[in-house]
Amino acid sequence: MTMAARTWNDLVGGVRRGEPRPLARLISQVEDRVPGWEQAMKALYPHSGGAQVIGITGPPGAGKSSLTNRITASLVARGHRVGIIAVDPTSPFSGGALLGDRLRMRDVATTPGVFIRSMATRGTLGGLCQSARDVARILTAAGHDIVLIETVGVGHDEIEVVKAAGCVAVVCVPGQGDAVQTLKAGIMEIADVFVVNKVDRDGADAVITDIRAMLALAADKRNETVPVIATCALTGQGIEPLVEALIAPAARAAEVMARHEARVREEILTLVEREIARVVRERWGTNAELDSTVERVCSGELDPYSAAQSVLRSINLKD
Amino acid sequence: MTMAARTWNDLVGGVRRGEPRPLARLISQVEDRVPGWEQAMKALYPHSGGAQVIGITGPPGAGKSSLTNRITASLVARGHRVGIIAVDPTSPFSGGALLGDRLRMRDVATTPGVFIRSMATRGTLGGLCQSARDVARILTAAGHDIVLIETVGVGHDEIEVVKAAGCVAVVCVPGQGDAVQTLKAGIMEIADVFVVNKVDRDGADAVITDIRAMLALAADKRNETVPVIATCALTGQGIEPLVEALIAPAARAAEVMARHEARVREEILTLVEREIARVVRERWGTNAELDSTVERVCSGELDPYSAAQSVLRSINLKD
Repeated sequence: MTMAARTWNDLVGGVRRGEPRPLARLISQVEDRVPGWEQAMKALYPHSGGAQVIGITGPPGAGKSSLTNRITASLVARGHRVGIIAVDPTSPFSGGALLGDRLRMRDVATTPGVFIRSMATRGTLGGLCQSARDVARILTAAGHDIVLIETVGVGHDEIEVVKAAGCVAVVCVPGQGDAVQTLKAGIMEIADVFVVNKVDRDGADAVITDIRAMLALAADKRNETVPVIATCALTGQGIEPLVEALIAPAARAAEVMARHEARVREEILTLVEREIARVVRERWGTNAELDSTVERVCSGELDPYSAAQSVLRSINLKD
Repeated sequence: MTMAARTWNDLVGGVRRGEPRPLARLISQVEDRVPGWEQAMKALYPHSGGAQVIGITGPPGAGKSSLTNRITASLVARGHRVGIIAVDPTSPFSGGALLGDRLRMRDVATTPGVFIRSMATRGTLGGLCQSARDVARILTAAGHDIVLIETVGVGHDEIEVVKAAGCVAVVCVPGQGDAVQTLKAGIMEIADVFVVNKVDRDGADAVITDIRAMLALAADKRNETVPVIATCALTGQGIEPLVEALIAPAARAAEVMARHEARVREEILTLVEREIARVVRERWGTNAELDSTVERVCSGELDPYSAAQSVLRSINLKD
């Protein structure tokens, strides 16, 4: 689908005025890379800075959605406008999503000043973090001064997506077996705040002790200052200290700045790769020449490596 | 690093004779896309068919490594030669890996006819499944008639990687909270066999009942025939029935064949995208022009979307 420049301008205008329908529509168009999307992002870009982007991640069942609910209510009470990006682990096979979790967020869904957007993880080749960045910028340009990115798990995808956040809360709960082992891979390094949720459960103290021990053991000096906050999303216990830790003037602002250049470089390269992948799929995904190549590989006449090389030659990237 | 054609020929010859050192070296070279790798894969390709590729996935702590250990011992006793691909969830930040799990596999690591290869998940943009496919082919060409791909979690990455397998076992255990909820996202669709491990634990029957109910509820008719097998890797209980289910002449061979063309098409496009991404990073990752573009974005003079477009224009893909 192509869209007239006028339509894009209308959408951008609606977004700037904070109107929910243009906002929802523009996000979809940008996620789908509808031709013209770059112009819209360029128009919004000057208005897309200054918001705090907070990532909330942790294993399934840690109560992240209820926590996001509580955090949002507290932020709204403090006068903030909150955009929420709920990352759905859409099945790469069926397209089905875990909608149950989202139901738990209905309390805030109808609050003025709150906008919730689900983001699918499928079909975003190397671009999940980029999608989150794009959507966070659009939400900011629409007047949200805080953007929460909530994930459903702690896999590579989730780690990828919270990289778009300036501050990351890692949530865990007692009674999930060896919580610390589960969290090990890659999650330690990205946590700015640890949250032990459902702290009324047995074993909460042990989890807090484990996390503190893990932080103390870590080679990275910065871990010494990572707070561990006990919460109970059900009763609201610990929510206020958590919100304060999340929105406190970033203690590591200098570090964030130092990472900024590397982030920009990474973003540009990701945008380039994603666009190339899109062009390749568009030009080659349903192409008579590829059809016959696929047939030859299926019949054993050709191997997939030679097939890919011949596609690459015709793209003429290696000149 | 470039390698002489002679060295590649030597490596390919060594792999064909099943020698472990050339095998390990060739896998590394292919994973790193050392120039010339395609020639090696083309030379091995005619010998890379016919092995059974079995995926073993499930949440952390489900005992997948111990199970893989047992399955391998049983397969070796049945006269098979087994290649194992252990997918490490290498942190995208620190490069650290969960090596503890691997230690549990030491029983089989020294068995003749068994070759274990760890595969990192980092830095394989859209290419994790492709890497597994490449390594499985190399292991097959080296004389392994069964290749096991063992993952560490059930994230998107893990689902991606087991797509390279013709048959997938999903392992879960009692006592991991709501096991079925944890498994929901995307995993149902890929399971050819369900394994309830640590069946001696409390709650095993409930997990089995839950999985059966979930299978019965699923819209997909094929789920009705998915076996649910109770095992105890510690005692060996249930291992033989599991191995038989895994190596049984695939009941859904017809379906697999129907998917074959789609798989080949996907593989070719993935190979193309990955090579383009490599070229882009090589040509642009450390480039003076990109340096100045990054600087302009950091200073606010330019937005990242315009920056990416200017890089794309100079790549001249859109002609």
